[in-house]
Amino acid sequence: MSFEHLAEIFLPSIEDELHMAVDLVDELNSDGLKHMLAYHLGWEGEGASLEARGKRIRPLLVLFTAAAAGGEWERALPAAAAVELVHNFSLIHDDIEDNSPTRRGRSTVWKKWGVAQAINAGDAMFTLAHLATLRLQDTAYSLIAFKATKILQNVCLRLTQGQYMDLAYEARGDLSMEAYWPMVSGKTAALISACTELGALVAETNDIICASYREFGYSLGLAFQAQDDLLGIWGDAAITGKSAESDLLSGKKSLPVLFGLSQNGPFAARWNQGPITPEEVPGLAVQLEHEGAYTATQAQATQLTDQSLGALEQANPQGEAGEALRTLALRLLKRQG
Amino acid sequence: MSFEHLAEIFLPSIEDELHMAVDLVDELNSDGLKHMLAYHLGWEGEGASLEARGKRIRPLLVLFTAAAAGGEWERALPAAAAVELVHNFSLIHDDIEDNSPTRRGRSTVWKKWGVAQAINAGDAMFTLAHLATLRLQDTAYSLIAFKATKILQNVCLRLTQGQYMDLAYEARGDLSMEAYWPMVSGKTAALISACTELGALVAETNDIICASYREFGYSLGLAFQAQDDLLGIWGDAAITGKSAESDLLSGKKSLPVLFGLSQNGPFAARWNQGPITPEEVPGLAVQLEHEGAYTATQAQATQLTDQSLGALEQANPQGEAGEALRTLALRLLKRQG
Repeated sequence: MSFEHLAEIFLPSIEDELHMAVDLVDELNSDGLKHMLAYHLGWEGEGASLEARGKRIRPLLVLFTAAAAGGEWERALPAAAAVELVHNFSLIHDDIEDNSPTRRGRSTVWKKWGVAQAINAGDAMFTLAHLATLRLQDTAYSLIAFKATKILQNVCLRLTQGQYMDLAYEARGDLSMEAYWPMVSGKTAALISACTELGALVAETNDIICASYREFGYSLGLAFQAQDDLLGIWGDAAITGKSAESDLLSGKKSLPVLFGLSQNGPFAARWNQGPITPEEVPGLAVQLEHEGAYTATQAQATQLTDQSLGALEQANPQGEAGEALRTLALRLLKRQG
Repeated sequence: MSFEHLAEIFLPSIEDELHMAVDLVDELNSDGLKHMLAYHLGWEGEGASLEARGKRIRPLLVLFTAAAAGGEWERALPAAAAVELVHNFSLIHDDIEDNSPTRRGRSTVWKKWGVAQAINAGDAMFTLAHLATLRLQDTAYSLIAFKATKILQNVCLRLTQGQYMDLAYEARGDLSMEAYWPMVSGKTAALISACTELGALVAETNDIICASYREFGYSLGLAFQAQDDLLGIWGDAAITGKSAESDLLSGKKSLPVLFGLSQNGPFAARWNQGPITPEEVPGLAVQLEHEGAYTATQAQATQLTDQSLGALEQANPQGEAGEALRTLALRLLKRQG
């Protein structure tokens, strides 16, 4: 399989590049800060493991795209590290903002070192992301590094806007389904689209191909989120067991929930009364399906998936990396691959 | 006076440039986020005023330097906005980390909108700082914008390292005086030295002059901090009144305190017993002076001040802006000017 074969080659290089970025932190006076970052990235401390690192989907997307667009994947490594560092900066801060005590089975940074140090560790990770981008000057050249910086900074602005909406939505009862897209566009799709855009940028493809890759990443991000929202209510983990995984419990304003609220039916009536209990979860999931939320969300996910795969074909990815890119997309979208 | 005259011209342009940066936030979906940033910058909301904006010392340093080094100050405006945004990003996060409810007589962002939104607002301000830097591409050109980005990103890393040390020091009883300098270098001096370096960069001076301006800013930052530490214990506000302003009350590990601890005398004995009460402040300030902390701190401040003013003379600043730069330095260092 191209995906497994290439991932096996790319993943160790991604870790090396991430280490190079984190090594910019001063050992002498800020060893503790460096350890927090290494802990969060899954390298050090209790529970450090391959699993604790996460899947490194975003940097793989950068490298697959760079190679599939005819570039040398090694030149895109700084961009790959940069998107992963931006992703992890946002996780460190999100965990504080959402009051989450664990991530991937381990204590979160704020839980281990307190909110103050965790905010600052996130800021450091954010800075390292941008310093990593600048290293494109060494692997490619200054103009590409400069363009990449611009792309990533604009994505970061969209990330903070998406996060603002997400936090603001928690308190609002009057949300329409339209409110969903700008939030998810910022929180999820912007960074994924930066991954494919940066890969194409380093490969120095023409503007039309580059736009297709960006569009592929953007729709992939949206489709992935819609798919994830489906699983968050009707996936095995959400329905069975203690329903602890259900988005209905966390009160998340996901796409099916916003659809349900727009129906003003029994689901909306119950939701507006206050927090859902674990016992109510299975019944409420059935009710929500009954009101059409499953079908509506799946229709959106299907449309976005088609859009994403269509854009990918337009980009016309080449060789083994092109195959790997298709596989990755299909897996993220829960289709075969 | 050159300072007043130029400040009157520069300050409105700085505000315009800051507005341009903040206007990148999407009005449609993130109007609330934009308001938080405008509130923190002193433009909107309860208590909005010239005073609430702060003195804009850092952007003035950038513009004075650019002009004094023979450049056009207008070209440096994006850099001026960038340093002010970095400064304000760090204030938003510091206020959360230090649990400070007020700043410049107004509620802090976290106090008004909660910790989650405040962390995210700080992240947005941080991003806007880097986007502002990129605008140097329009006022100067790409290479300068790229170099400026590098300077600012490296400073941000040093900022987070300084903040890490500051937070870590709170819990430590075994600190030597040597621990002070890397912390203050990161927290204060790094950004001030970036101000003068960026000004010189945009003016396209030669490397030697540029290094002198950077050194001027760096020593200025350190000298300012040592001076500020003196006032924090023996300044009028700290000694008189309810002593609420004294660093002895907040438990800050400032230079005089670290000196006192290194003496292992009565001051250290009292400090190690736990928090100081307001009633003890005047007596303990006298005791600390008795043990030599005042003289030692002042000697450091004097040496750094001489170093800073020496570097400024080496840079040989020109014209009215050069005069304004000298005045600003002398005022910050509490000498006449």
